[in-house]
Amino acid sequence: MNSSGESEILIFEDETKFKNYLETNHRPAVLRNANLGPCLDLWKDDKYLQEKLSGHMVRAHVGQNKNLDFRTKNFSYCDIDLGVLVDRARKEMNEEHFFAPDEIYYLRSVSGDGRTPQVSNLSTDYPQISQDFHHPKVFAEEQMFSSVLRISSAGVRIWTHYDVTDNVYCQVVGHKTAVLWPPWQADNLYLQGDKSLVTDIDNPGPEFPLFPTHNRLSVDLQPADVLFIPALWFHNMKAKDFGVAVNVFWKELENKFYDPKDSYGNKDLVPGAKALAMLDNVIKQLKLLPPEYADFYARRCVQKIQDKTYLNE
Amino acid sequence: MNSSGESEILIFEDETKFKNYLETNHRPAVLRNANLGPCLDLWKDDKYLQEKLSGHMVRAHVGQNKNLDFRTKNFSYCDIDLGVLVDRARKEMNEEHFFAPDEIYYLRSVSGDGRTPQVSNLSTDYPQISQDFHHPKVFAEEQMFSSVLRISSAGVRIWTHYDVTDNVYCQVVGHKTAVLWPPWQADNLYLQGDKSLVTDIDNPGPEFPLFPTHNRLSVDLQPADVLFIPALWFHNMKAKDFGVAVNVFWKELENKFYDPKDSYGNKDLVPGAKALAMLDNVIKQLKLLPPEYADFYARRCVQKIQDKTYLNE
Repeated sequence: MNSSGESEILIFEDETKFKNYLETNHRPAVLRNANLGPCLDLWKDDKYLQEKLSGHMVRAHVGQNKNLDFRTKNFSYCDIDLGVLVDRARKEMNEEHFFAPDEIYYLRSVSGDGRTPQVSNLSTDYPQISQDFHHPKVFAEEQMFSSVLRISSAGVRIWTHYDVTDNVYCQVVGHKTAVLWPPWQADNLYLQGDKSLVTDIDNPGPEFPLFPTHNRLSVDLQPADVLFIPALWFHNMKAKDFGVAVNVFWKELENKFYDPKDSYGNKDLVPGAKALAMLDNVIKQLKLLPPEYADFYARRCVQKIQDKTYLNE
Repeated sequence: MNSSGESEILIFEDETKFKNYLETNHRPAVLRNANLGPCLDLWKDDKYLQEKLSGHMVRAHVGQNKNLDFRTKNFSYCDIDLGVLVDRARKEMNEEHFFAPDEIYYLRSVSGDGRTPQVSNLSTDYPQISQDFHHPKVFAEEQMFSSVLRISSAGVRIWTHYDVTDNVYCQVVGHKTAVLWPPWQADNLYLQGDKSLVTDIDNPGPEFPLFPTHNRLSVDLQPADVLFIPALWFHNMKAKDFGVAVNVFWKELENKFYDPKDSYGNKDLVPGAKALAMLDNVIKQLKLLPPEYADFYARRCVQKIQDKTYLNE
């Protein structure tokens, strides 16, 4: 734990040890100097990606605030040629732009045209570059869910959220800071669906008194770093400079647990979503009572859930 | 708040002020030197109650441990003539006894024969003494649920529990210590139904780390004290000497909220009981998930309940 109460993530240099750790612990870890293939050299090149990817339209996040905020929607979805996006995202100022010269760009690739997103797959979506990227073989191939290309301008920060699939996040170009919180911090993260309402994770403000600015994991990612983010672990990623990453999502559980309509790997697991939906009727009963009585029986309900389903920490 | 972190209960000497306080605050309070009628003199008399009540069979708690424990059932239900019970409960040693000369007695009156308990009513159950007792008119008569005669040997302590009806507890003979916790402490009281599993409230032990030995209200009751225990407030009563009390239960809410089969005033309110029962299906869904995932979605459920129904303190 460092001076700010953050724990550092275990960093491995050996792929086998990294793999063994994930199998045994299913906890965040980093594999440094991973063999991600020729992409490590090729994608650094100013023109390579631009040329390879031009002619391919994508829908990107574009905004003037580097801290993307899903609540205030301080960004727009803009359709743009991927070659142009790569070019613009590298620069701090762009004469050609949507809103302003200093606008920032963020791509999270999806298959399809971006309007009806489908499960992203680097090999089929971007065959012109997919051979450049070798993903670390940490899980069985049949458990692979998707592979996602991520491109971001310097400074872009993505809101704190969780996915329901394991995430093997491969940093190819540029540097990022990743901050992670365990799933059992869910109570304190002020969630709306899978996202935290807290935008400034270092100074959450009085609206969010329980938000843990300590007791979190953090790591600075560099090119050829592979960060393992287990399913349900909350993460907040900030690009320190222009960045290109590919992350591979994996299903830890049997298929039946995942929502078949999930394109992003973040829809709630089927029994979890059902439990949350069934809770509406429980809450409806509680609301029949005057507030002080409702509060009491709500606490009885909470206690029952905790007794029956919480793991002992 | 005294040195042990206990707050003391507001004590009134004026019935009107007491009544106004209850109407406005619905919080624990004591009316001292209440006009409870001739019972204050008559029931002190060694022989009066014994003579008036003999010939009436009751089912009483009898045991050798003064701290009655519903979990280990360290007492028995014994059928006994109420005159005999009054006589024995006054003494520390009894040559005639069920189990041992030093056994203790506790009566919580019910109507009927004690096997199929019905709502207790002092006037109809014990007309020979009911005229001696005048209960303070703090609530509308039509809201009255029951009146209960309580007789206890010196030292008897009744487990911490809550009732769903308001309780106007009138101490007639003897002294008691009452300790109370607010309903919003429910999470920390290790409940099994309406009762706390904690028997030693001052030294709960490592099994019960959250049990609040502070942040509770406490009051020493003397003859002619009336303690108001609001519905859902947890209470633990210890008789310091031989005691006779009558407590009157009142319904604060409309009839529809109360379980019509409730003879004691402690069955969960209908919507509360329904909410707790419906939760079984929610928990069944959660249990379909592997434990770490179940824990996560359980926390999401808890957060949802808290967001929608907890009062802000």
